Amino acid sequence: MSVVSKGLENVIIKVTSLTFIDGEKGILRYRGYDINDLVQYGSYEETIYLMLYGKLPTRSELNQLKEKLNEEYDVPQEVLDAIYLMPRDADAIGLLEVGTSALASIDKNFKWKENDKEKAISIIAKMSTLVANVFRRKEGNKPRIPEPSDSYAKSFLLASFTREPTAEEINAMDKALILYTDHEVPASTTAALVAASTLSDMYSSLTAALAALKGPLHGGAAEEAFKQFLEIGDVNNVEKWFNEKIVSQKNRLMGFGHRVYKTYDPRAKIFKNLASTLMSRNTEAKKYFEIAQRLEDLGIKQFSSKGIYPNTDFYSGIVFYALGFPVYMFTALFALSRTLGWLAHIIEYVEEQHRLIRPRALYVGPEHREYVTIDKR
Amino acid sequence: MSVVSKGLENVIIKVTSLTFIDGEKGILRYRGYDINDLVQYGSYEETIYLMLYGKLPTRSELNQLKEKLNEEYDVPQEVLDAIYLMPRDADAIGLLEVGTSALASIDKNFKWKENDKEKAISIIAKMSTLVANVFRRKEGNKPRIPEPSDSYAKSFLLASFTREPTAEEINAMDKALILYTDHEVPASTTAALVAASTLSDMYSSLTAALAALKGPLHGGAAEEAFKQFLEIGDVNNVEKWFNEKIVSQKNRLMGFGHRVYKTYDPRAKIFKNLASTLMSRNTEAKKYFEIAQRLEDLGIKQFSSKGIYPNTDFYSGIVFYALGFPVYMFTALFALSRTLGWLAHIIEYVEEQHRLIRPRALYVGPEHREYVTIDKR
Repeated sequence: MSVVSKGLENVIIKVTSLTFIDGEKGILRYRGYDINDLVQYGSYEETIYLMLYGKLPTRSELNQLKEKLNEEYDVPQEVLDAIYLMPRDADAIGLLEVGTSALASIDKNFKWKENDKEKAISIIAKMSTLVANVFRRKEGNKPRIPEPSDSYAKSFLLASFTREPTAEEINAMDKALILYTDHEVPASTTAALVAASTLSDMYSSLTAALAALKGPLHGGAAEEAFKQFLEIGDVNNVEKWFNEKIVSQKNRLMGFGHRVYKTYDPRAKIFKNLASTLMSRNTEAKKYFEIAQRLEDLGIKQFSSKGIYPNTDFYSGIVFYALGFPVYMFTALFALSRTLGWLAHIIEYVEEQHRLIRPRALYVGPEHREYVTIDKR
Repeated sequence: MSVVSKGLENVIIKVTSLTFIDGEKGILRYRGYDINDLVQYGSYEETIYLMLYGKLPTRSELNQLKEKLNEEYDVPQEVLDAIYLMPRDADAIGLLEVGTSALASIDKNFKWKENDKEKAISIIAKMSTLVANVFRRKEGNKPRIPEPSDSYAKSFLLASFTREPTAEEINAMDKALILYTDHEVPASTTAALVAASTLSDMYSSLTAALAALKGPLHGGAAEEAFKQFLEIGDVNNVEKWFNEKIVSQKNRLMGFGHRVYKTYDPRAKIFKNLASTLMSRNTEAKKYFEIAQRLEDLGIKQFSSKGIYPNTDFYSGIVFYALGFPVYMFTALFALSRTLGWLAHIIEYVEEQHRLIRPRALYVGPEHREYVTIDKR
């Protein structure tokens, strides 16, 4: 026991039947179903059922799930109050942590292996409430609980914006939720697993995941990618910006490259297509979409020989922006979707392969030192 | 890459110069100094300095540190408001998570490698405020910020109880803080490392640690150990209880055994001595202390041949109880002390050996499945 596993790279922390990734071929599957099929034919609610129960739902199972989600949007008043107590310029993920922590301190009616899947559905509904209200708080609007509807995406958009979303917008939100659902065990999922391994409650595990997602090396990537488009500002500036910032100054091109994918991230392709469906009515978003496409061409020319291609965060921000969300919400929207993946992973871990997570550190510090009293130092 | 590292047992996640444990010999050292020496001659403030800066402080360095702590007890009003908004029966660690999450969402003035040690000292001070006010909230008292004093332990006790603590009480609290300071990389520290590895902020890393500590397999052990003493209720019941619950029904004896120590936990010895100093004035605590000592004798007779001895949580609850804290606060008091260890570990990791923590999962689920539309399922 003396080799340090830096970053736990290539350490297998669990087995899983949830998500399969082939980074060489650009394949992503949830429980065996290709991400392209799920996005084309399925819905986020189907994905919830699939991830939690291992199979696609029948019509009646799906309806039951939707009913349960509709029943669970409400949260204790204290939880909303705590979010609205924070200043408007508070960090969005920090506010989400306040919400999940408040839920963790109030709801003590959680039991692993007894009601964990039920609670997972309840928490997925409540995350919609939290994310919508983090947005509303930061925009200076009043609290609003998502109303029951036939679509989780629709209820969420309605609660966020207080206006009826279009069919195209509901569709794009629904697909975005599917796309960010899970990606094996990145840092956020690992943090959730560590917390759950102590048999801490599900809300706290979710809080741990958010704490990790908050970091710029993880959840912040879509925001960073989009900030490039804002900085470029005009499609005619792309080439100059790219040559200066990326080629000459060797800054990292955000939204490009991935530790697992060595080819085009399958999610990036779908986000690009989704973005194009939203452009007709939105000239501001269209401008950034054109910038992104031009930047992608240059990036691929420059980096594809090294296996560096657009990742999921490159175009997702365009979709979120076209839906009406400001940049500061992108990571929170990622969290809204990934909540399902986090919860599915911790349920799988605790139910099927539980063990307290307790690695070791290799001591390289001083040998035994004699204590010297303060006046002799 | 196909062997699962269950619970990350024997996986080395980092190197460290902070804490050395010899589980066979029962040795625990912080930066080379034996825990017995630190408790006998040192103070918690010296331990803070030692952990963050690698050496024991001179008199003037120590005074500067105390001054800084005294300046940093205050927290934004919203943070206290959020805690007092929660119901009185809220979980203590959940309430602490609310506090650290609120701080994470408000204070954006944190930079790794620039002000991380300074912020660590500020956070250690603010944790005293949070823990004292979690207690006050749950007791139905009004908010109170720790007042500057020459002792972190004294300021904390004064804020918690609104009465002048005795010299013995201050001493016991100070030593308890030293004893729980660090213990290498248990689940809570691992969760903090995972969050920090994404370059998330320090408050969020702390929140992740709390989320893991909340679990009954980790931070809850002192509470579980003490609940046994409560259940036994009288020293004359110990033998009967032990034979029934532990020998016959084979329940686990809480506060006994440790994944690392195979002999008497050096911290348990010190906690036992500390407890005895507090017993003269406290007949209620004395009753439980006598129960614990009797239970220890029976436990050692039964289990010592298997390397199972009292661990730090066996007697720590007696000390906390004698100081006036109810059982529900024990884990929060653990957190108050361990904040130093968590922060020292994440600073060491980010400054000296940073790498994003991203393990893998081994996929064992279904191969590619054809999507079947809902009406054909």
